[in-house]
Amino acid sequence: MAETKMWGGRFAARTAGSVEEYTASEHYDRALHAEDIRGSIAHAHMMAGCGVLTDAEAAAIVAGLEQVREEIENGSFQWKRELEDVHMNIEARLTEIIGPLGGKLHTGRSRNDQVALDFRLHVTRRLNEWRGLLAHLVESLQRKADEHRATILPGCTHMQPAQPVSLAHHLLAYACMFMRDSDRAADCARRSAVSPLGAAALAGTTYPFNPAAVAEELGMGGVFANSMDAVSDRDFVIEAVFTGSMVMAHLSRLCEEIIIWSNPAFGFVKLPDAFATGSSIMPQKKNPDVAELMRGKTGRVYGSLTTLMTLIKGLPLAYNRDMQEDKEPFFDADRTVRASVAIMADMMDALGFDVERMRAACARGFLNATELADYLASKGMPFREAHHVTGAAVGFAERQGRGLEDLTIDELRQFSELIDEDVYEALAYETAVARRETTGGTGPGSVSRQIDAIRAWLDAERAEH
Amino acid sequence: MAETKMWGGRFAARTAGSVEEYTASEHYDRALHAEDIRGSIAHAHMMAGCGVLTDAEAAAIVAGLEQVREEIENGSFQWKRELEDVHMNIEARLTEIIGPLGGKLHTGRSRNDQVALDFRLHVTRRLNEWRGLLAHLVESLQRKADEHRATILPGCTHMQPAQPVSLAHHLLAYACMFMRDSDRAADCARRSAVSPLGAAALAGTTYPFNPAAVAEELGMGGVFANSMDAVSDRDFVIEAVFTGSMVMAHLSRLCEEIIIWSNPAFGFVKLPDAFATGSSIMPQKKNPDVAELMRGKTGRVYGSLTTLMTLIKGLPLAYNRDMQEDKEPFFDADRTVRASVAIMADMMDALGFDVERMRAACARGFLNATELADYLASKGMPFREAHHVTGAAVGFAERQGRGLEDLTIDELRQFSELIDEDVYEALAYETAVARRETTGGTGPGSVSRQIDAIRAWLDAERAEH
Amino acid sequence: MAETKMWGGRFAARTAGSVEEYTASEHYDRALHAEDIRGSIAHAHMMAGCGVLTDAEAAAIVAGLEQVREEIENGSFQWKRELEDVHMNIEARLTEIIGPLGGKLHTGRSRNDQVALDFRLHVTRRLNEWRGLLAHLVESLQRKADEHRATILPGCTHMQPAQPVSLAHHLLAYACMFMRDSDRAADCARRSAVSPLGAAALAGTTYPFNPAAVAEELGMGGVFANSMDAVSDRDFVIEAVFTGSMVMAHLSRLCEEIIIWSNPAFGFVKLPDAFATGSSIMPQKKNPDVAELMRGKTGRVYGSLTTLMTLIKGLPLAYNRDMQEDKEPFFDADRTVRASVAIMADMMDALGFDVERMRAACARGFLNATELADYLASKGMPFREAHHVTGAAVGFAERQGRGLEDLTIDELRQFSELIDEDVYEALAYETAVARRETTGGTGPGSVSRQIDAIRAWLDAERAEH
Amino acid sequence: MAETKMWGGRFAARTAGSVEEYTASEHYDRALHAEDIRGSIAHAHMMAGCGVLTDAEAAAIVAGLEQVREEIENGSFQWKRELEDVHMNIEARLTEIIGPLGGKLHTGRSRNDQVALDFRLHVTRRLNEWRGLLAHLVESLQRKADEHRATILPGCTHMQPAQPVSLAHHLLAYACMFMRDSDRAADCARRSAVSPLGAAALAGTTYPFNPAAVAEELGMGGVFANSMDAVSDRDFVIEAVFTGSMVMAHLSRLCEEIIIWSNPAFGFVKLPDAFATGSSIMPQKKNPDVAELMRGKTGRVYGSLTTLMTLIKGLPLAYNRDMQEDKEPFFDADRTVRASVAIMADMMDALGFDVERMRAACARGFLNATELADYLASKGMPFREAHHVTGAAVGFAERQGRGLEDLTIDELRQFSELIDEDVYEALAYETAVARRETTGGTGPGSVSRQIDAIRAWLDAERAEH
Repeated sequence: MAETKMWGGRFAARTAGSVEEYTASEHYDRALHAEDIRGSIAHAHMMAGCGVLTDAEAAAIVAGLEQVREEIENGSFQWKRELEDVHMNIEARLTEIIGPLGGKLHTGRSRNDQVALDFRLHVTRRLNEWRGLLAHLVESLQRKADEHRATILPGCTHMQPAQPVSLAHHLLAYACMFMRDSDRAADCARRSAVSPLGAAALAGTTYPFNPAAVAEELGMGGVFANSMDAVSDRDFVIEAVFTGSMVMAHLSRLCEEIIIWSNPAFGFVKLPDAFATGSSIMPQKKNPDVAELMRGKTGRVYGSLTTLMTLIKGLPLAYNRDMQEDKEPFFDADRTVRASVAIMADMMDALGFDVERMRAACARGFLNATELADYLASKGMPFREAHHVTGAAVGFAERQGRGLEDLTIDELRQFSELIDEDVYEALAYETAVARRETTGGTGPGSVSRQIDAIRAWLDAERAEH
Repeated sequence: MAETKMWGGRFAARTAGSVEEYTASEHYDRALHAEDIRGSIAHAHMMAGCGVLTDAEAAAIVAGLEQVREEIENGSFQWKRELEDVHMNIEARLTEIIGPLGGKLHTGRSRNDQVALDFRLHVTRRLNEWRGLLAHLVESLQRKADEHRATILPGCTHMQPAQPVSLAHHLLAYACMFMRDSDRAADCARRSAVSPLGAAALAGTTYPFNPAAVAEELGMGGVFANSMDAVSDRDFVIEAVFTGSMVMAHLSRLCEEIIIWSNPAFGFVKLPDAFATGSSIMPQKKNPDVAELMRGKTGRVYGSLTTLMTLIKGLPLAYNRDMQEDKEPFFDADRTVRASVAIMADMMDALGFDVERMRAACARGFLNATELADYLASKGMPFREAHHVTGAAVGFAERQGRGLEDLTIDELRQFSELIDEDVYEALAYETAVARRETTGGTGPGSVSRQIDAIRAWLDAERAEH
Repeated sequence: MAETKMWGGRFAARTAGSVEEYTASEHYDRALHAEDIRGSIAHAHMMAGCGVLTDAEAAAIVAGLEQVREEIENGSFQWKRELEDVHMNIEARLTEIIGPLGGKLHTGRSRNDQVALDFRLHVTRRLNEWRGLLAHLVESLQRKADEHRATILPGCTHMQPAQPVSLAHHLLAYACMFMRDSDRAADCARRSAVSPLGAAALAGTTYPFNPAAVAEELGMGGVFANSMDAVSDRDFVIEAVFTGSMVMAHLSRLCEEIIIWSNPAFGFVKLPDAFATGSSIMPQKKNPDVAELMRGKTGRVYGSLTTLMTLIKGLPLAYNRDMQEDKEPFFDADRTVRASVAIMADMMDALGFDVERMRAACARGFLNATELADYLASKGMPFREAHHVTGAAVGFAERQGRGLEDLTIDELRQFSELIDEDVYEALAYETAVARRETTGGTGPGSVSRQIDAIRAWLDAERAEH
Repeated sequence: MAETKMWGGRFAARTAGSVEEYTASEHYDRALHAEDIRGSIAHAHMMAGCGVLTDAEAAAIVAGLEQVREEIENGSFQWKRELEDVHMNIEARLTEIIGPLGGKLHTGRSRNDQVALDFRLHVTRRLNEWRGLLAHLVESLQRKADEHRATILPGCTHMQPAQPVSLAHHLLAYACMFMRDSDRAADCARRSAVSPLGAAALAGTTYPFNPAAVAEELGMGGVFANSMDAVSDRDFVIEAVFTGSMVMAHLSRLCEEIIIWSNPAFGFVKLPDAFATGSSIMPQKKNPDVAELMRGKTGRVYGSLTTLMTLIKGLPLAYNRDMQEDKEPFFDADRTVRASVAIMADMMDALGFDVERMRAACARGFLNATELADYLASKGMPFREAHHVTGAAVGFAERQGRGLEDLTIDELRQFSELIDEDVYEALAYETAVARRETTGGTGPGSVSRQIDAIRAWLDAERAEH
């Protein structure tokens, strides 16, 4: 009967069945049950504090809500689609348990501020979980970097060998990305952790409520400034999904390298069995499926961002039902981000690198050409001229199938009289890495300082959680 | 044990549990079971036709597959996540039923061409369903237009009243959009209905297969031209989701009008109870929730398009595991498009229009100003000048709070001596609509021709299905 | 000749003309000239500080760069497409002016870290300009709100009248959005203002450089931690464009309301002539073109975000030429955001509101229904029951074409015996607004506190700039 | 003065300068001048045919328009921003040339249908140009494939060597993609080539116009069915940009392969100097910049699609000024698509392939494993079992650093007694390609048939243009 709808009093006809399915959210917003109950408990406490409920009423409501939580957690709760959403399901059950008093819980509150509160609590919690997972991944990268301080591979630009770098340095570049992601998640969580409770439907409440008390009980750093904004603001979730999109973008870059490095032409990576799969038709294959899927899932989180930004465009104040569509994109993005970061951390721990293949690759591609240019510049030649001279020398060597270090001193001096025997020291691959010791460079001292800084960051992250 | 994985022979370690969850698709690609079985039956028939299977083997396989289908449809089938996907689940069960012969079904086939076939069959089927639903919606619009040939409302540009139009004409504009959508769906279905079976993993098969026979049995219009393309082409699904995005864009426009027209300031629309909902706090509300949600769901389908286009970018040949992520965005978009089109058709049937409010709105906003300009132009004044003259007259009338039709002939002749008594006929709202009878105009004759053309289109659509 | 290319030494053939056009960036990255020169001056100073240049060399370079800047600013500079980009154009001209010494400027620097530095300086500067413009807009909203503390209009949810609110409160909701945008811009600017100079091509430099000195001279808060990350990180610009997308999303919401409110059915807004345009065919039209265009331009900034996120997906380390495509999307988004925010501030200043039309609209739509429910709840009825009772009363009044306040006390008491004569005070539209005085509510005291808080925020913003 | 605005009659205040800049489109919609003049000539001819203009008037208008076109083409035309757009600029100049008669050109026409017509003509023309360019690219691929029928390289799935394929076959996969793109462009052009002229502002015209005559003169296949749809439909340009997005997606895949194959680890590709660039710091670099930029520009076209889809979402009927923002995204996407397709065709012509490196890569990676499985299956072993057996053999060989073809017959028979001496023929790389001769396979006969089919397609394309 229409009576099962809380707002059904004035409605003569029954909502069409297909419409009920189209508009219901209970099947996915159940995920908010913990936050809904936390929020309702804080609301009851605050109402008791304001004298809107007696202490006994508040206690009975809280006890009832805790019973509901217990039922949900132990699986005995009966979810009902006709009750539309998680909030109505919980309130209806509360009223079954404690009687008409259950109806008082909604005093001075609307689904508009209630759902905004629940969702803000949820998004904030997930952002903090992301930070924990990102720290875990940064730690894995740092640990692997620590193992590979001495491993040298061709550093690429334009996917072409450019200069030798240490694998440690290469991996720490990713650690930097994920630390930035964590920083963004923290900023977003700060903006998300603002309580909208008390905004009611859109105009604020007539009850002498204390929104700050609710925010404090829930560990939120702020309280809404304007009720119309409070019920229609979805910035927090859009920003969260943007933050997740950046995480996935960074993961996609790392995945791309794992995939390319798994190809036998490179052979830099030994895929752990647990993170690879085979082929149904080609028995020899060991495919980097996990890295491929993760790269593919990038689009999924980007898609959620598009969904949300499209959603919000051009919506008048205040709440509009369009906004119900904010949850599934976040839930999907959150699942993807959490699983991806966690699995990448595990995969990084398990990943083997073929140190010999990496070193051998350095011999191809004139990776010491910059060293020759620097050598000439250090002897006083303007750098642009040194670059031209080196280009000519590389062309000469390439046509003969030799490396720069294979040219005789006389051959080299054809290109500049500034070249002396000490050039061969400069051309040694082993020292090219070691010479780049300024801040952020690939030299071992710089890498040590990077690792130390990351460890300090990890300690600070842990201390905060 | 690793042995439950079909490709596990060479793998020493067990896939990590989280990885299994991350990479499995069985929980969503079950939706392809009907197509998988249809495709396998066609494959078996074709193999028998080519002598790769005996007729008895093919018959046994087909019977086994039909039993599997029966089990799935009656709910007795046991889905197993560790078998990864729908294809392995079905094949494993087939082998349980008919023994080792089941293994022969996969002869000359790879999951790469198998999954591409299943998905193409599925997308094609859904596109055809969309066409049916779109026709249903076009019919609803046409029927409602038929009822409202004589209803006049302000036609807007820039959301400002511009010229009076008939509601019939207004609604038929949407019919045009949805007919174009159907046209696009048909083009997409043609490109989707191309069989990739026989491409095998990527290079084609060594068996003397007859791909055309498979395509014919499955009602597909074409056969793949290049095996590497066949296993890595996802154009069909991206184009389908684009097609769905356009459907939603058009629905969002119609929803926007329903929402605005439901506001009491307009009051053009009487929302049927079955398609509206109430408020948990404001008892007087009758909210156009269904239209709002539908407008919001537009972003959801756009998001799926972003997902797929991001996915495909920069992928080398041939199949990459990223492509597994092509299904959920389509399934979600498909559910949204089908439900939205169907519900809009029902809502359109049930929608009431307040004819009086619409007519009253015409009196506001100088909707006959263009008529005055046309009147002057018909008397030989260059149109640009007539436009200026009319602007001056509108300004004069507006300052006095009167309509153009309320001005005396002397007042009007201040602006141009070309104005005579016959101007009042030109200014009548009732005739402004009637005068626009050329192709596609809002005049009743034009509307009749539009309705006739739509009916002919509907007949043609029905004949095709 | 190929010789005009700085890297041409080894290249035998000339770059194809169409390729030159395809790859050149000089026509748009000229916009970075001020930052390029600032960055080069800081680089020269730092090199002198490290002893890599003599003080005299540095001084000559700086003087030359200042001459180049002068030439660019006075329009006498000759831009050359064949020099590809702004950096090469400036360096080539510097060398013309000061001779071969000009070549030394590039010592220990690569275009990779140079372009990253210039772009970070530019984006940071623009983000700060956005903050200034947003403050200007917030001030306009606050000023207009100040004028309209007593103006009452229907507050809507679902685009349906819900509860009366003050126009001040409504406008301040937008101020909240733009303050959040400014907060995001500040966070983004902090992450953007990190100097990458010293990262060189990708591996760091062999010179004894002092990256911190460069950062300090340029007013940047940080220095890159990892050279491979430094040259390939584009997070700062993606985040900036996301930040701009949120600004546009918020503007699009405000524009939507201005557009709808301009329709005569509402008539809430009087469009200033300077911000409206007319029709070439309908002389009576006064169209909210600026608001429409601004709403439309939302998509443009969203599009730039899609561009950048697509760009970065799956790129291996370190710099890839794809990244050149990062600039035009930002330049376009920046132009759009700056112009839109500035114009909205001016439009808001000039906007007139029809106070009478707004008040009259409150009479429609049972805007005091919630008051009745609250009244009943305040007498002890559980809120859910009060909601049902009120729904019944609204239905009764609606069927008779009356408002709740028009019902007699006997009629009202049919629905609940808790209703007494004091109900009419509760039902008065005038007091409904006044009763919502808790934090963030629409009551006049709350609005005063909101305005005070915004003024304090504006003072703090101004103090910072 | 406001008088320079065509719709200025009623406006008291001057449009603010910044607003003029914000709303003007003349600086970019000039690109439509040829179509605007063509459309106006057809309009004049049609009006003469209907008796709305005399033949002499029409002739004078046409002569005037041709003079305007001449002035634009020879650069003497004075564009004026204050005239807002291309249409007003042309009409104002026409009136200067032929006097007040120029004003009659706009009879029965609005900027709404005029701009829709011009843009449809423009988009249709560009789509046809795309088809020409795509045919050119398909021809380049076909020609290169023709040269490399006998070149064998590892066909990859999951970026792992899977089975040997011919380079011809690999390249033809891309030809298939671009032919599909051309097919989509043709469908889109058909929907774009529909004349909206006669829809006027939104309601149709009162003049006895003949829209079909205009369509016929302009070579458009259809006429609008509904005037409100005609002025607000932007499907054609959204679909065009989607079509371009697919082109770029396909190009990005080809670019990815060129980039990876240019890395010395692969060395499959020899980049022509004209399509590569060097490094400002690393003299040895030869970077695939053009391929990288093209991959990066994919995001740019995707971004335009996002822009347009966001734009159209939720717009009420009929024309809204938001729609002015439809042009720049198309112009930008069109420039990118045309340049990219043309340059890829040239690059493909110039690209060298290192046949030896490709063949050598086949020896790595057990590319004949599928052959062994097929061999076993051909002897009657169920395929799934054959797959397991082969997996075990591959594991055995891999642990010994040998290929399958290096195992002795006794070693091989450990895994199955079905293996005989004829296995070595099956394991030969040279024959693996040759055996895949069914439709679309990589075998030489299949490739020949593919090339023949493409040549036939090219002939048909040429015949159509």
